[in-house]
Amino acid sequence: MPYQLIELSYEQDIATITMNNVKRRNALSLAHMQELISAFREVGASQASGVMLAANGAVFCSGHDLSEMVDQDLPFMTNLLETCTTLMNTIQEIPQPVLACVQGVATAAGCQLVATCDLAVAAENASFATPGVKIGWFCTTPMIALSRNIGRKRAMEMLLTGDPIDARTAADWGLVNRVVPAEQLREEALRLLRAASCNSFNARSIGKHAFYNQIDLPQSQAYEYAQGIMASASQIPDASEGMRAFLEKRQASFEHK
Amino acid sequence: MPYQLIELSYEQDIATITMNNVKRRNALSLAHMQELISAFREVGASQASGVMLAANGAVFCSGHDLSEMVDQDLPFMTNLLETCTTLMNTIQEIPQPVLACVQGVATAAGCQLVATCDLAVAAENASFATPGVKIGWFCTTPMIALSRNIGRKRAMEMLLTGDPIDARTAADWGLVNRVVPAEQLREEALRLLRAASCNSFNARSIGKHAFYNQIDLPQSQAYEYAQGIMASASQIPDASEGMRAFLEKRQASFEHK
Amino acid sequence: MPYQLIELSYEQDIATITMNNVKRRNALSLAHMQELISAFREVGASQASGVMLAANGAVFCSGHDLSEMVDQDLPFMTNLLETCTTLMNTIQEIPQPVLACVQGVATAAGCQLVATCDLAVAAENASFATPGVKIGWFCTTPMIALSRNIGRKRAMEMLLTGDPIDARTAADWGLVNRVVPAEQLREEALRLLRAASCNSFNARSIGKHAFYNQIDLPQSQAYEYAQGIMASASQIPDASEGMRAFLEKRQASFEHK
Repeated sequence: MPYQLIELSYEQDIATITMNNVKRRNALSLAHMQELISAFREVGASQASGVMLAANGAVFCSGHDLSEMVDQDLPFMTNLLETCTTLMNTIQEIPQPVLACVQGVATAAGCQLVATCDLAVAAENASFATPGVKIGWFCTTPMIALSRNIGRKRAMEMLLTGDPIDARTAADWGLVNRVVPAEQLREEALRLLRAASCNSFNARSIGKHAFYNQIDLPQSQAYEYAQGIMASASQIPDASEGMRAFLEKRQASFEHK
Repeated sequence: MPYQLIELSYEQDIATITMNNVKRRNALSLAHMQELISAFREVGASQASGVMLAANGAVFCSGHDLSEMVDQDLPFMTNLLETCTTLMNTIQEIPQPVLACVQGVATAAGCQLVATCDLAVAAENASFATPGVKIGWFCTTPMIALSRNIGRKRAMEMLLTGDPIDARTAADWGLVNRVVPAEQLREEALRLLRAASCNSFNARSIGKHAFYNQIDLPQSQAYEYAQGIMASASQIPDASEGMRAFLEKRQASFEHK
Repeated sequence: MPYQLIELSYEQDIATITMNNVKRRNALSLAHMQELISAFREVGASQASGVMLAANGAVFCSGHDLSEMVDQDLPFMTNLLETCTTLMNTIQEIPQPVLACVQGVATAAGCQLVATCDLAVAAENASFATPGVKIGWFCTTPMIALSRNIGRKRAMEMLLTGDPIDARTAADWGLVNRVVPAEQLREEALRLLRAASCNSFNARSIGKHAFYNQIDLPQSQAYEYAQGIMASASQIPDASEGMRAFLEKRQASFEHK
C-alpha cells in the first residue's frame, strides 16, 4: 500500500514508521491515522522483529487535526475517536515491540501515542503535553493512556493545566524510558529497540500479548491467566532450545528472532 | 451556612477552604468533616474556578479526632468512617480542581485528604504519615487513597511503620506535585491552582469527572467510555470557540472560566 | 519440619528464612518452593512479629531451576507454576510483614519474590532482571508481580530486553524500599523490618490483609470494604488501648507485638 503522510521502511529486522506530514505538524487527521493503522498492521504481519515510530520535523505529533474537526457533528467526531482508539489498540496488539522515538513536541493524541507504545526514547528537547483544556476540549482519550503510565497527581497536573513537561521530567515520571541528546536519539532508540527485539520472536510476542491482557486484571485472576500462558509457552520449540542452550552454555538458535 | 471550624473565602475566582481548628490540630471530628463536606458542596455549586484546601497552624490535619472516638461503639465508628468517605468523594466529585496546600504535618485521614485532592503543593517542612498502626488502629481507609497515589512498596512502608516521610520524598513518590520553601507556599499553590483553573470551566469539569470514572476501568472499557465523553464534549460551545480561536491564533473566549 | 534447601531461624521476634542452596544459585526447584511454602506457613502460624527472606551466596534467587524443567510436559509445568503462585500468595497471606533482604542477583521468579514481598532492602551490588525472553520463555508469571510494582514502560523494558537493572534503579522505580552498602544490608533490613513489626500484631495483620484485598478494587468498592474493616478494627482491645495511651501520652501496651 502506498502511503502519503507517513513512510515505512525496513532496515535489517527493524521496521520504521515515520510520520512525515511536517507542514501539518504530523497532526492525526483521519487519513493520517488510517495510514498509521495500515502500516502497523502491515508490519505486524511481517517478519520484522521490532518497530520504531518516528517523525520528521520539529514536532513528533501535534494530536488531532483541528482544521479538520472544527464544527464537525457528533457522528464525525465519534468515528474520528474510534479510529484513534483503533490506532492505539493496534500498536499494543501487534506482536513486535513498538518504540516511540520522540524528537520534538508530542501533544494530545501525540502524547497518547508515546504513552501507548511499549517503549519510548526522547531527545532532550522533546516535550509532552495534553493541552486540550486550553481549547475547551479536554484530552479525555489521551488521558486513558497517560494515566496508565504516570501517577495520578502528575497526570492531573498535565491534564488540568495543559502545560508541557520536558523530556527529563517525562523520564523521571516513567512516560519515556530514557532521554538522550538530540544527536544521539536515533542511535539510542535503535539500541534499546534491538535489545528488546533480539531474542525469540515467539516468546516475545506471547509475552507482549499477555502483558496487556493481565495488566487490568485483579492479581488472583492475573496469576490464573499467566500460569496457563507460561505453562503452554514452555512447550514451544524456542523454549526448549533456549533452556538447552542456557544449560549447555551456548548461544540459543531461535526459529525466528 | 456559618462555619465554626473552617473558613471559606473567595478571592477572584478561587475559593479557599481553610481548616482552622488549630488547638485540635485540625483533627477531623465528625463536626469538622461535616463542615468540610458542606463547604466543598457550597463551592462545588458556586461559580468558583478552582478550590484550595489550606490549614492554619503547624499541622495541616492530624486525622480523626481520637478524643472523640475512644471506646465508641461500632455504629458510631461506622457513621464516622462513612462521613469521612463522603468527604473524600465530595472532593473528587465537585467540578473544580481541588489543590491541597500543605503547610505542615498531614497524618492518617489528613494524609488521605492530600492523596484525595486533584493536586497538592507542600512546604519543605511538611510531612506525611499514616501512623494508625502505632495506636493499634491501622490506617485502612487512608490506605485506599494513599495506595492509589504511590507505589506498593512505598505505601506498605508508610502503613506498616507509621513513620513520616518528608515533603521532598512525597514529591519524589508522586503524593504531591511540588515542594517549595514555606514562605513561597501560598504563592506557588495559587500559581498552580490558577494554571489548572484558567481555561474553560465546562471542559475542565467534564475532564475531572471523566478522570475518576475511567481510572479504575480496564483499558478497553475506559476507551469505550472516554470516546463517548470526548465526542460529546466536542459539541459544546467552548470546544467550538476554543478550536476556532486556536486556528485563528487568538485568545479563546469561554462561557465560564 | 526439617528443611534441606533453606534455613529457618528466630531471633527475638523476627523470623528469618534463608535460601541456602548456594550451588544451585538458590533456584526455585519444586522442592525448594515447597520448603519455602512450608516455612512461610510455619512462620505465619507462629508468634513471630515479622519475617525476613534472605539468601546465602552471591545470588539471591535465580528463578526456576532450568535443569529440572527442560523438556518437561505440560502437566509438570502447570504444577510447577501453580506451586510458584502458591508461594507468592502465601507471602502476602501470612499476617506478618515480609521483607526481602537482597544481597545479590534476583532474576525471573527470584525477581518476582522481591516484587511480592511487602518490603525490600537491597545491597548496592544487587541486581534485578526478568530474563526469560533470552531463553525463549517469557517471564509471564514474574510479570504479574513486577508490573504491579513499577511503571509500565519500565516493566516492559525489563521484560522485553531481559537486561538487569541495578539496585539504585530498583529503588528509584519503587521495586525496593532502599539500597545500602553490602556491609550494612542486614542491619538496615532488620531496622526497617523491626520498624514495620513493632506495634500491635493484630492491627498490622488486619492492615496487611486489607491492603491486598483492596488494591485491585475500584475505589468506591475499596472504600466500602475498607470502612467496614476499619470500623470493626476500632473495636479490638489494641485499638482501645492504643488510643487511650496516645491521649494519655504514654507507651501503648499491646496484647501481642
